[in-house]
Amino acid sequence: MSRRIACLLFEEFQLLDAAGPISAFEIAERYQPGSYELRVIARRRGAVTSSSGASMNAAGLPSPASVDTLVIAGGSGTRAASRDATLVNFVARCGTRARRVASVCSGAFVLAATGLIDGRAATTHWTRTQDFSRRFPRVRLEADRIFVKSGKFWSSAGITAGIDLALALIADDLGESVARQVAQQLVVYYRRPGGQS
Amino acid sequence: MSRRIACLLFEEFQLLDAAGPISAFEIAERYQPGSYELRVIARRRGAVTSSSGASMNAAGLPSPASVDTLVIAGGSGTRAASRDATLVNFVARCGTRARRVASVCSGAFVLAATGLIDGRAATTHWTRTQDFSRRFPRVRLEADRIFVKSGKFWSSAGITAGIDLALALIADDLGESVARQVAQQLVVYYRRPGGQS
Repeated sequence: MSRRIACLLFEEFQLLDAAGPISAFEIAERYQPGSYELRVIARRRGAVTSSSGASMNAAGLPSPASVDTLVIAGGSGTRAASRDATLVNFVARCGTRARRVASVCSGAFVLAATGLIDGRAATTHWTRTQDFSRRFPRVRLEADRIFVKSGKFWSSAGITAGIDLALALIADDLGESVARQVAQQLVVYYRRPGGQS
Repeated sequence: MSRRIACLLFEEFQLLDAAGPISAFEIAERYQPGSYELRVIARRRGAVTSSSGASMNAAGLPSPASVDTLVIAGGSGTRAASRDATLVNFVARCGTRARRVASVCSGAFVLAATGLIDGRAATTHWTRTQDFSRRFPRVRLEADRIFVKSGKFWSSAGITAGIDLALALIADDLGESVARQVAQQLVVYYRRPGGQS
């Protein structure tokens, strides 16, 4: 059965945070048909405007039980999104129901707002680390990692690190060889060493 | 005056081909306000579905005289787009009116279909090079480059190389230092050496 990947957007999300993982899963599906089913979701169905002004279209929030892997985009909109009770509750319910919950870039703020990664390791965009540590002192921030896995919770560094994160999720599901093919197709380095800043 | 960047989409475009350059210009604008104005455009105003199934929203085709830099996305939809007379004519008119015309990934097929890069150097996604050379034997394909500049025409290699291309356009406009800051913000390597495959 296809793994249902849901990419969560909100107003002022960072377009590339969403597009990177979506494209990685899209290509993995091309190599191994039937592996993934992608959905773009938001608080309300319709157009969601990114911080670039370009907009993507989303479905509304699905039942958390129907989500295999939630991928939370980052962007300047995380300031509001991480204080939006409906969104944070949705992510929290995914945190108990879904197989994996992953954040890209400052999407870590929305994930951390659930309290579910207190005591766990996580990372975020290198420009947001001080802000993150002040707001979520219980999360063990690993500031210079490309991505961090802690149980079912995954988080990635800034923007394009969402691609590295998605490749790691794909390797977890389909093996290193498929993940490597996806990286080649995307023309990205497979397994960047860290040191995001 | 802001440079007007127009990103051209069509059905079955590759989402990351568009999102990479858009995000790079977005961040450059953040560092040097007033540098860029971004528009996403397509044959018809409205939602345009990428090959991932996720869709973006576009304005219709603008007057080519209002475009500073046209960025043509790639993707499986280039097969149809490069045979769509309306689109190819629009790109051709931008080729004479705009300051620069750039293609990402297999967007080079749409650019080459205008005939404007006959005799010029260009590149495209590494999986599409044979197909490209057969169809456009007069274009001097440089298969293993990350991006190629030939006069006002720029082309880039596969998918994420659109980010490298956009960084080069930004360096061209605002200098290396701003382009390097954008790369840092995006968490990408600045000036990848080539060897896309």
